[in-house]
Amino acid sequence: MAFFPDCPLCTPDHAALLWQDDRLRIVRVDDPRHPGYLRIVWHRHVAENTDIDPLGRLHLMRTVFQVERLQRAFLAPDKVNLASLGNQVPHLHWHAIPRWRADPCFPDAIWAPPRHDAARAAAWADFAAALAPRAERLHRFLSARGPAADIPEPDA
Amino acid sequence: MAFFPDCPLCTPDHAALLWQDDRLRIVRVDDPRHPGYLRIVWHRHVAENTDIDPLGRLHLMRTVFQVERLQRAFLAPDKVNLASLGNQVPHLHWHAIPRWRADPCFPDAIWAPPRHDAARAAAWADFAAALAPRAERLHRFLSARGPAADIPEPDA
Repeated sequence: MAFFPDCPLCTPDHAALLWQDDRLRIVRVDDPRHPGYLRIVWHRHVAENTDIDPLGRLHLMRTVFQVERLQRAFLAPDKVNLASLGNQVPHLHWHAIPRWRADPCFPDAIWAPPRHDAARAAAWADFAAALAPRAERLHRFLSARGPAADIPEPDA
Repeated sequence: MAFFPDCPLCTPDHAALLWQDDRLRIVRVDDPRHPGYLRIVWHRHVAENTDIDPLGRLHLMRTVFQVERLQRAFLAPDKVNLASLGNQVPHLHWHAIPRWRADPCFPDAIWAPPRHDAARAAAWADFAAALAPRAERLHRFLSARGPAADIPEPDA
């Protein structure tokens, strides 16, 4: 397996790791503005989705959509954003980002400048803090059961 | 099929249409800063990738990756960005965006503020204009042959 010591995704961040198999891993992104933000990282150092074989890509995308499904179940966001960019770190990975109408950049991408004034930023910080326990519950679920697991009943 | 008259993606833009089947269409995005930028639009009005059935999603993602493959073959970008956001228009669609190190927002997402000063912006405009005929060739190929077609030999 190609390993690039200067690539930040070639060396797994074990503190952020929630789940992995032999091909990919799911990691938490601890950004207080975006509760429940996860990344799906392909272990092998390749740049593009079309650099991997079709079966691997099928597994990768199935995992991305399983993550979306869990984010929706645990967090009930207004929207989910999925993106594979890799301009800064050209090692294949996907961003899965729950979005809310009140979050700082909505309805723009999270990479756009925030639209909030101080009052809305403070209100969002309160809301995001209130979501944090649900994001933690999602993290624990993913760690224990993996992305393909059945979603538990509410309050189960 | 659900149709929302206020949704800009429920009414197909025939001028931008390159190719379609019974489930999705591929449209050109005429942004002079981003030659070869394409969108893949699911015909039916649903918000999330996990709102469609797994076989439909397989077809959608296969098409997205076929588009990436053609963008790489015709344009040789430094990177391809794929994203399904839908915060502004919650009708399922994918952005497939060829990126170059010299383009205005690189290495940020195209939704971030441009990093260019006037000199670099002018240089990029020249480069993007030089790419435009290759993007047109990609458009013609997609219109005539569809996204699954074999890629022609160089200079074919």
